[in-house]
Amino acid sequence: MDDRRTLINLDDESSDEEDAIVPQPKTLPSSKPVQNFGDYQNEEPSTSSSGGAAQSISGNNHLIDSDQPPLLGNNAPEIAPNTQINGNVNDSEPIFHLRSRTAAASTPNYESLDYEVCENTLFQDEQRKRLTERFSLRKDVIRWIIFIQIGVITALIACTIDIIIEELSARKYSFLYDSVQKNVPLSDGSSGDLVIPYLYWLLLSIVPVAFGAAMVTYIEPITAGSGIPQVKSYLNGVKIPRIVRIKTLAVKAIGVITSVVGGLAGGKEGPMIHAGAVVAAGISQGKSTTFVKDFRVFKAFRDDHEKRDFVLGGGAAGVSAAFGAPIGGMLFSLEEAASFWNQNLIWRTLVASIISVFTLNIVLSAYHGLNDFTFTGLFNLGKFDQPLKFDYFELPIFMFLGVTGGLLGAAWNSLNTKINNFRKRFIPWKIGKVIEAVVVAMMGVTLACLMIYFINDCRPLGNDPTNNPVQLFCEDNEYNAVAALWFQTPEATVRSLFHDPPGSHKILTLALFTVVYYVLSCATFGLNVSLGVFIPTALVGAAWGRLLAMITFYMFPEAEFLHPGKYALIGAAANLGGVLRMTISLSVILMETTGVESSFFFPLIIALISAKWVGDYFNEGIYDTQIQVNHVPMLTWEPLPQYKGLTAKEILSSPVVCIKLRDSAHYIYQMLKKCDHNGFPVVDDVQGNRRSEGRVCGIILRSQLIVILLKSLYVENKRFWLPETSIQTFRDVYPRYPSIKSVRKLDDKINYTVDLSMFMNPSPVRVNPHDSVPRIFQIFRALGLRHLLVINNENRIAGIITRRDFIYK
Amino acid sequence: MDDRRTLINLDDESSDEEDAIVPQPKTLPSSKPVQNFGDYQNEEPSTSSSGGAAQSISGNNHLIDSDQPPLLGNNAPEIAPNTQINGNVNDSEPIFHLRSRTAAASTPNYESLDYEVCENTLFQDEQRKRLTERFSLRKDVIRWIIFIQIGVITALIACTIDIIIEELSARKYSFLYDSVQKNVPLSDGSSGDLVIPYLYWLLLSIVPVAFGAAMVTYIEPITAGSGIPQVKSYLNGVKIPRIVRIKTLAVKAIGVITSVVGGLAGGKEGPMIHAGAVVAAGISQGKSTTFVKDFRVFKAFRDDHEKRDFVLGGGAAGVSAAFGAPIGGMLFSLEEAASFWNQNLIWRTLVASIISVFTLNIVLSAYHGLNDFTFTGLFNLGKFDQPLKFDYFELPIFMFLGVTGGLLGAAWNSLNTKINNFRKRFIPWKIGKVIEAVVVAMMGVTLACLMIYFINDCRPLGNDPTNNPVQLFCEDNEYNAVAALWFQTPEATVRSLFHDPPGSHKILTLALFTVVYYVLSCATFGLNVSLGVFIPTALVGAAWGRLLAMITFYMFPEAEFLHPGKYALIGAAANLGGVLRMTISLSVILMETTGVESSFFFPLIIALISAKWVGDYFNEGIYDTQIQVNHVPMLTWEPLPQYKGLTAKEILSSPVVCIKLRDSAHYIYQMLKKCDHNGFPVVDDVQGNRRSEGRVCGIILRSQLIVILLKSLYVENKRFWLPETSIQTFRDVYPRYPSIKSVRKLDDKINYTVDLSMFMNPSPVRVNPHDSVPRIFQIFRALGLRHLLVINNENRIAGIITRRDFIYK
Repeated sequence: MDDRRTLINLDDESSDEEDAIVPQPKTLPSSKPVQNFGDYQNEEPSTSSSGGAAQSISGNNHLIDSDQPPLLGNNAPEIAPNTQINGNVNDSEPIFHLRSRTAAASTPNYESLDYEVCENTLFQDEQRKRLTERFSLRKDVIRWIIFIQIGVITALIACTIDIIIEELSARKYSFLYDSVQKNVPLSDGSSGDLVIPYLYWLLLSIVPVAFGAAMVTYIEPITAGSGIPQVKSYLNGVKIPRIVRIKTLAVKAIGVITSVVGGLAGGKEGPMIHAGAVVAAGISQGKSTTFVKDFRVFKAFRDDHEKRDFVLGGGAAGVSAAFGAPIGGMLFSLEEAASFWNQNLIWRTLVASIISVFTLNIVLSAYHGLNDFTFTGLFNLGKFDQPLKFDYFELPIFMFLGVTGGLLGAAWNSLNTKINNFRKRFIPWKIGKVIEAVVVAMMGVTLACLMIYFINDCRPLGNDPTNNPVQLFCEDNEYNAVAALWFQTPEATVRSLFHDPPGSHKILTLALFTVVYYVLSCATFGLNVSLGVFIPTALVGAAWGRLLAMITFYMFPEAEFLHPGKYALIGAAANLGGVLRMTISLSVILMETTGVESSFFFPLIIALISAKWVGDYFNEGIYDTQIQVNHVPMLTWEPLPQYKGLTAKEILSSPVVCIKLRDSAHYIYQMLKKCDHNGFPVVDDVQGNRRSEGRVCGIILRSQLIVILLKSLYVENKRFWLPETSIQTFRDVYPRYPSIKSVRKLDDKINYTVDLSMFMNPSPVRVNPHDSVPRIFQIFRALGLRHLLVINNENRIAGIITRRDFIYK
Repeated sequence: MDDRRTLINLDDESSDEEDAIVPQPKTLPSSKPVQNFGDYQNEEPSTSSSGGAAQSISGNNHLIDSDQPPLLGNNAPEIAPNTQINGNVNDSEPIFHLRSRTAAASTPNYESLDYEVCENTLFQDEQRKRLTERFSLRKDVIRWIIFIQIGVITALIACTIDIIIEELSARKYSFLYDSVQKNVPLSDGSSGDLVIPYLYWLLLSIVPVAFGAAMVTYIEPITAGSGIPQVKSYLNGVKIPRIVRIKTLAVKAIGVITSVVGGLAGGKEGPMIHAGAVVAAGISQGKSTTFVKDFRVFKAFRDDHEKRDFVLGGGAAGVSAAFGAPIGGMLFSLEEAASFWNQNLIWRTLVASIISVFTLNIVLSAYHGLNDFTFTGLFNLGKFDQPLKFDYFELPIFMFLGVTGGLLGAAWNSLNTKINNFRKRFIPWKIGKVIEAVVVAMMGVTLACLMIYFINDCRPLGNDPTNNPVQLFCEDNEYNAVAALWFQTPEATVRSLFHDPPGSHKILTLALFTVVYYVLSCATFGLNVSLGVFIPTALVGAAWGRLLAMITFYMFPEAEFLHPGKYALIGAAANLGGVLRMTISLSVILMETTGVESSFFFPLIIALISAKWVGDYFNEGIYDTQIQVNHVPMLTWEPLPQYKGLTAKEILSSPVVCIKLRDSAHYIYQMLKKCDHNGFPVVDDVQGNRRSEGRVCGIILRSQLIVILLKSLYVENKRFWLPETSIQTFRDVYPRYPSIKSVRKLDDKINYTVDLSMFMNPSPVRVNPHDSVPRIFQIFRALGLRHLLVINNENRIAGIITRRDFIYK
């Protein structure tokens, strides 16, 4: 462990690049290694550093930014040197210590959210003022209103995306249909060139995909992919930059429309969940930083803690709107997204989900001209007409399908990760990413055309509810079953596979289709486009599920239970389980979107459980894989097995940069300039400048210190600011706190002091150095902490533990 | 607040009566009030004490059990008196302080569970030994096996109860039917006396009810009621005595069979949930204390923390078996029962639920002779043949039904609470309780007979699927619709109300039935019998829901949407929402038990939400009401509003009885004899006997101290016990720790000392005196704590906070 530790404690790397280059070599007149430093002497220079900011950190190991000899080390607290004990020591340069971690150095700088409510004096003053029954009722009512708004607006956005995709796709495919019909070489030898529709198809794929990929790449790269991993990380407490901005929402919406219309192997469901999260974050804050507009409402909800709950509701509303599945949406939030949970939250989340589905249903009913105002549910994946039944002897088959799904899913995840690693290494340029998306789109079109051209799978008309039955080389009363699979959006294909009557496809068709789509979807997820992974995964599963049923039926023609639609559904569930590794929410979503009865829940869950268990043996679900690949410091549910048997003192970072309860403005300014931590213990009972030996009396955040400096909240001018300073002063700059660069030099205020007692959080969570890591993890996780102080028996600081300490080892 | 505080800190009243009489007056030679006690001087004697133990506590306020002048008070720590500082101070009597709370004094003594894992040295040793990958995998596999066993066995018990009730009820009602047919006075004037079947009916009700009530009253009173409040309290962390014993299970099973067969207005669902919890607790521990049998398996799961998770799974399996609703069961656990939650737990709970439903289905299929092995779900409340549809304009009607349900439910809860209070006051004798149950049963039978006799509601035969169509005074091809309602179990009546075709009942019949059943069910819940409240509540709701539809249809005969079954279902949902105040799980359970489609989830949830909101305006759900009435110290999800704005120092108990890290056996023995707390801070750096001024270094439980004394784990004989002492030594006596009375007098060991450093939990959670109560509550709740230490800036003890401090004010 010790080789990871150097002398600045990088607990939370700032995302501000200018801050990360700390300490800057030119500001360091004398750089000498610390020698009297207890167990930190056996350090090695960190090796795996890369990138600008990290380079400069690791390049400056062992630095102390002071001309004074360092007087730190908890093992010698009794030797009191003759240092200045009075408050006015701001002429001495502060002492900093640097710690870099090999893992952290090569990863992006994700900060954490402050889920812990900082209950400082200002906050408690506000609480006391609002102690009336009425205020708390009002806050409750407003919270409900916000959740209802989230449901409505998320549904409206989902509707818009839905309708636009449907309209554009319908036009695209009917145009292509006409073109095929016109150019098909008839049997009488009349002229016709199928290259023309192929080129049209290419064009109609390339243009939207290129547009969408360019938007994502050049305007807002965070919108790439489904957005679920990002939302999940956010809810876990990681600040993903720009994840909940309005611009992100706009790019994501346009991106998903263009990608789906362009015919990429992806779905619109994941992005809708992200859209719900953005809507929730936007509405709940009552202001938009993008449009520099503050509506001056919902001010009480402007902190990470409240925002998180709303984002959870928004995610659930998004799922509900995407699938028309309110219970599924709520369960999805619980199972996949929520890291924290309480009964009221589940309850509000459910209401947002229901409102969302309801709104969606009304709008879509109106759009489809169904004016009989009967609520029928949405059934995105098509309702099964007859109740699906199963026999007990089918259970082993379902289990087998589950195992297959688990294997295929694990392989898919692994393959996809490899492809994405390849991408990251060999396609670093922006234009390359756009071109790559276009190439994948072209590949899809080409493969589809080849399949349509070479496989002669003709079926009688009238049997299949396909919208555009392409005749091609078939007889007059027949249509091409291969074209039927490709001439629609993936979602519509899932529907066909579930509901097409038995005998709609050849075995060869479906087998080839499965292979092609498996590869295509694997190549697609990870492109710089906004697309979800749910629909292609379900599609692949439905295809091989149906295929297996067809093959078995071919071998045992008397087995009448082999309803291909049923097996397509089970296959979809198994494949989804293998790729996503969700169980409860997936089964409920599938039930709600296909209208199967609750008794069919049993086979679904059997398949899902088998798939999950088998898949988990090999790797993690695709969302978690993505999170890991991006080095997002997400906290798992249980501590990693490597941490068992360790104690706090083996993972903590020390020494810690501390601030005195009453410290000089100069020290604080210098410290903020020189190190980019986000939480600083506030200490008392300090001898001279030996801050890291003080007794802990609180913790203060970087953002709070910057506000203090910006607003000049010094002791010396207290009478000016005291009357008008409240917790609102700090809340006003939420969520985009200024950087220390925006603070002017202190010049005339260099001798001023700051009294942190009313600003700091006086109740940091503290543990002992000998506490076990699993226990500390549990506390950290349950309370949603960002910093955890390790104190010794005398309440003096022994180290600090942050999110990253549980991730990298 | 201060008037609640006296000088022994009764944080957890022991359930051992002999311990509670502390300190006994005869052992107190000099009882003088403390005067130098800071802010505790303005005390008033507590007033509302009652009962033996509490009396003696409150009668001995202000006592210090010592001849020495008390030297406590954190406000004067600097005055170091000339006390002995060496270890051998066990000749001085320990100093105790008593604190009684007005509220606590009059309530039963509920202890808390130790959810927090005590990570002492022994535990960590064990962990290190088991650090291998294999052990952890093995534990995981065993955990899964236990969950599966729980599912299977719970289902088998549920089946047994189900089948016995069905068989006995069928016999009872067909006998009564024959008797009615024989004795009905025919129109030709032939003899017949309807008193005979009435008397038979009375007999067939009184005998089982009296038997069941007697069993519950005399053998195991904890089995009264549904058991859900008790399971909920247990999962919240309250040790309800005897709640998870095998004897309890046996009495509960027989109790519920007799009560339902006896015809009381109750259901078997609640008791099944309790049964699941008992099964889970029993299996997971691998031993039965009742049968003094230790199977020597699953030893690693013998602590409150693991047991809780299994009990949660058992509860879910119970719900699933009771309703045939696996998702509903899991959601029920989450919504109603679980106080703590994590993803793995939800996942295991779901598997237990599914296994349970599956087992139940197989056994019931076999029992009913359905050997086609087709899984059709259970549909306890009958499957709706056609998909239920609804129009948008019906939503306000559903909402109105919800509001009605909320009002009726709130009234029911309030009336039931009044009846139960009356009972508690005026029927204290055991025989009285049995007689009361019999009287209610007789009342039910009499009212039913009167209704059948006086209301002439004849319907043509063949329309209604009633098993025993009583002809009575009707024409030959008709049957009596009133008798049809009463001549079956309540569950079957719910089924009839859902599925009977329109026009099966007169408005008058149903109106009277609703009123009678409303009153009957209200009088029944709270009797000393094992019965659940779900079915009668659903029945009342179904009755008035159907009634409203019938009345409206009578007024507007053209309103064809008024399907009475649909409105019965909505009414049942609304009434359940009004009484139980659950939403998500209820709607899912109703969906799963009636097989309605997920699109009908929307009206169900509209009705439930309206009912819950309206009901919550008046009072709490019936389970929470019961918990409150019984003064169970259950922690709510949010801190009570009265606690807002308070800080730790306003709710803490102090001074705290502490133990030195190395203390004398005599002191510990005396202290355990004299006070009945369950957690003692372990302190260090103590001057003489001023233990409560020491620095906190851990916390130790009463049970651990007793084991130490019992096993003579002293420093002086360390070489004898050290090699063979492990965490297992302490686990062996779990869960029924011996009382201090079982420890022999120390006589020869009076000078021995105990070194707690390897036994104590070295990582107690600590907060500051100025921390806000809501924050402390959050920590307490999230970590499932039992004791929370309040320390000052120097890590010296300032007080202790326990569960009760958040409950009473």
